[in-house]
Amino acid sequence: MSFVVTILGSNSASPAHNRNPTSQLLRIGQEHLLIDCGEGTQMRLLALRQRASRIRYIFISHLHGDHYLGLVGLLSSLHLNGRAEDMYLYGPPGLEEIITTQFRYSHTTLCYRLHYHEVGPVPEVILETEHFSVQTLPLSHRILCMGFLFREKTGKRRIGKEMLPPSLSVHQLKRLKEGKDLFDQSGSLLYRNEQLTLPPRQPRSYAYCSDTRYHEELVEYIRGVDLLYHESTFLDDQRERAAETYHSTARQAASIAQMAGVHKLVLGHYSSRYRDLTPFLTEAKEIFPDTILSIEGEDIVVE
Amino acid sequence: MSFVVTILGSNSASPAHNRNPTSQLLRIGQEHLLIDCGEGTQMRLLALRQRASRIRYIFISHLHGDHYLGLVGLLSSLHLNGRAEDMYLYGPPGLEEIITTQFRYSHTTLCYRLHYHEVGPVPEVILETEHFSVQTLPLSHRILCMGFLFREKTGKRRIGKEMLPPSLSVHQLKRLKEGKDLFDQSGSLLYRNEQLTLPPRQPRSYAYCSDTRYHEELVEYIRGVDLLYHESTFLDDQRERAAETYHSTARQAASIAQMAGVHKLVLGHYSSRYRDLTPFLTEAKEIFPDTILSIEGEDIVVE
Repeated sequence: MSFVVTILGSNSASPAHNRNPTSQLLRIGQEHLLIDCGEGTQMRLLALRQRASRIRYIFISHLHGDHYLGLVGLLSSLHLNGRAEDMYLYGPPGLEEIITTQFRYSHTTLCYRLHYHEVGPVPEVILETEHFSVQTLPLSHRILCMGFLFREKTGKRRIGKEMLPPSLSVHQLKRLKEGKDLFDQSGSLLYRNEQLTLPPRQPRSYAYCSDTRYHEELVEYIRGVDLLYHESTFLDDQRERAAETYHSTARQAASIAQMAGVHKLVLGHYSSRYRDLTPFLTEAKEIFPDTILSIEGEDIVVE
Repeated sequence: MSFVVTILGSNSASPAHNRNPTSQLLRIGQEHLLIDCGEGTQMRLLALRQRASRIRYIFISHLHGDHYLGLVGLLSSLHLNGRAEDMYLYGPPGLEEIITTQFRYSHTTLCYRLHYHEVGPVPEVILETEHFSVQTLPLSHRILCMGFLFREKTGKRRIGKEMLPPSLSVHQLKRLKEGKDLFDQSGSLLYRNEQLTLPPRQPRSYAYCSDTRYHEELVEYIRGVDLLYHESTFLDDQRERAAETYHSTARQAASIAQMAGVHKLVLGHYSSRYRDLTPFLTEAKEIFPDTILSIEGEDIVVE
């Protein structure tokens, strides 16, 4: 099953240097999830040939415009394209009012069902599906802002082709995939399932943390995740400015990653004052070597 | 004095084929005016190296998202960049509520003054400056929608360099520019102003008409304008669809241009169903030869 983050927007506040406001597409198997939706997100999806129609879940971290101003345009375009499937939207109080006010004035009645899920400041599981769960994370920003932790569920045991006897029927293979043992016609055990299958893949996890100042309380919630996205609006020489504006520096993001023992850190939400992003990587890697930059259009495969 | 329309977005409804939702920048001399502000307008301005900070007046034709969804992002970016000058916003009832609702949830108090001017369905002059006036135009759309007519004022007589006697002092030149006659030291008339100056330039005019179905009532308001932008969402084989959705075809736009005796017609607001725009031009030119397409990034100089 795929578990891939595609960076749609990586800048903070305003667009600059060909970088756009925050948005990410997360694909877990067949499911497409959108995380934040800055202005122009629908254009980024088009440019990357990612079909917006496949998105079923949208998560908005907070109500600063650079994290949600593309939402009404995206929802409208899906409506104009005749979407039939329900859409599930998770965001802070106020998001529903912002959307319904605009649709009221445009006389828009969506042709699909949009389910609003208001999400509060207390960390909790907000979504459970067959394959993954989503939990909110406590961040510390100027207004209510939450992170999201996407955690794959333990899957089924996997067929190990090289372990299969050549005589296996389609019916028997199906039983194996369902986790069942195999019996002969008289009902005697032929193979236990474990003899012919591999253990399930280790479930993967992705923590999305934007926007926040340096906030150690976060650490216990993201311990050991496979991939951590942590905002790094500034470099560390601007840490006072970061604290004032409730943002983080690359060094602080790396410290959180280190304390939480995550496997990989991805930086983002860069201030427009920086054209060159190399110093972000250098600064973070001093503390946490397995760091990468979020670059628009690039996929990050969670291993 | 310059009088130039820059096309920032030319598509209808959703972005497609690298075309963006509607927006135009109008420069009249030193003044920068924004007409409609679809999603991504601030990115288009950046890409064209047009400084958003120079915009003083914004006109929103109606509250369909493809005409205003870039507005909150643009206003926010100007705020983040520390704008000091007042901004004047003209739009239909509801626009102020849409903006203030979003700024309330983002805890944004703009660092500049934003003046809201609610504009109703009855055509009227909504702005008079030293150099131009703006009047609303009656359109016929699914929701309240108005056009805007930008009309230069008659300027001063112009200095004709080849008409000037070589002995003229700086003081005398200044008097001429102010429209005054020249006298000698005894008070006798030397030259009447008309002897040394050219008549003022013919005042120019631009009518912006989007979105509307074919609407003949419009004709009397735009008679003889130098440039008419008239939406052409569809080609004429889709005129039933155009009527249903309160939009126009290229042929209908050309008919309005012809009836109104305008000097030049520019088409736009193309439906996403059309990748190639050549048929729009062909169709309109059959009725009104002096037609051009609005193409994003291109300037249209009003002569």
